[in-house]
Amino acid sequence: MSDINTIVEELVKFREERDWGQFHNPKDLALALSIEASELLEVFLWKTPEQASIEKVKEELADVLSFAFLLADRYDLDIKEIVLTKIKRNAEKYPVSKSKGTAKKYDEL
Amino acid sequence: MSDINTIVEELVKFREERDWGQFHNPKDLALALSIEASELLEVFLWKTPEQASIEKVKEELADVLSFAFLLADRYDLDIKEIVLTKIKRNAEKYPVSKSKGTAKKYDEL
Amino acid sequence: MSDINTIVEELVKFREERDWGQFHNPKDLALALSIEASELLEVFLWKTPEQASIEKVKEELADVLSFAFLLADRYDLDIKEIVLTKIKRNAEKYPVSKSKGTAKKYDEL
Amino acid sequence: MSDINTIVEELVKFREERDWGQFHNPKDLALALSIEASELLEVFLWKTPEQASIEKVKEELADVLSFAFLLADRYDLDIKEIVLTKIKRNAEKYPVSKSKGTAKKYDEL
Repeated sequence: MSDINTIVEELVKFREERDWGQFHNPKDLALALSIEASELLEVFLWKTPEQASIEKVKEELADVLSFAFLLADRYDLDIKEIVLTKIKRNAEKYPVSKSKGTAKKYDEL
Repeated sequence: MSDINTIVEELVKFREERDWGQFHNPKDLALALSIEASELLEVFLWKTPEQASIEKVKEELADVLSFAFLLADRYDLDIKEIVLTKIKRNAEKYPVSKSKGTAKKYDEL
Repeated sequence: MSDINTIVEELVKFREERDWGQFHNPKDLALALSIEASELLEVFLWKTPEQASIEKVKEELADVLSFAFLLADRYDLDIKEIVLTKIKRNAEKYPVSKSKGTAKKYDEL
Repeated sequence: MSDINTIVEELVKFREERDWGQFHNPKDLALALSIEASELLEVFLWKTPEQASIEKVKEELADVLSFAFLLADRYDLDIKEIVLTKIKRNAEKYPVSKSKGTAKKYDEL
């Protein structure tokens, strides 16, 4: 079994044991994901990147990934496929010739 | 190679080709992740969960996952390990006996 | 009429003319507010604080304030009162003697 | 003095007493604002709009407004002016004839 499938299987097991599937509609999962991403951001608040606690980053990033995986599972999406597809799209939006070394958004290139 | 490693390898290749590593300090990666999570949330704004476009969810979720993977890579974190560790912690914070069928936060249980 | 009342009156007028009150339940207003706060954040992404465009900050901050005011109006909250009350609470959480010159959270003081 | 000026004056006094101006660069203020907006969102997580606690909404909305006002102050922006200007712009983006009764984004109208 792939790493991703192992993770999703554990997440689903955790959810099922607690009967939380009833709360996990996609809209609230997207809320939860956004809230966790914000808690991750808080690890860096008023700090330089170097001052952030790696232990806290680990915990919050794990929460972000958990809800991202649960949302993918809710829609039966193949995580590897959607990310690789998006990389291809982004390669078109951000051709190397125009975007190399600049942080500009595609609509400003 | 695991699925996750394949994805991370592609993300890093995309980044290196564009020489974007210089912008990817962990704090700005956390900002980017939070911004993408918010764009995912926008797919559901003013809508019922069912009205959201799955195509858009796919794209935005892929962006969220991309920055989450890049942040993990930045700190050399093992994604499978940090998520499985967090599931164990959450199992302690949310024992089945107390949390089954309720969406309450651990500090309200 | 106070400045705040003038602003809220204009926001409500804008909403009523478009018959958007039907979408503005408090949960979706909170989503919209969070999404706008994230667009404001994007003005600073991959940048030093000084590199951010003030023109964009103005626009996005105005959007944040608009949804914050509309949410307050939805619950009939007095903006001046809730902020002044919160300042008093924060003064108790963050006594000057302990919090002066440090960015630590109250639970780390 | 206007209501807004009174609020900002109290916020600045609170900040100065704690010598927190040194942390309040605009980028971190935008982070703080986004984090607070997310805490407000959490009041609604896994809930219908009606189930959310008004007391918690009050507190979190006050935090959002506080950082929004502090950010405006940081750039010397006139809150009333920027919101009224944005309403005018939005009126152009969302003409009543096209946007009445629909929650579509301006680029989908």
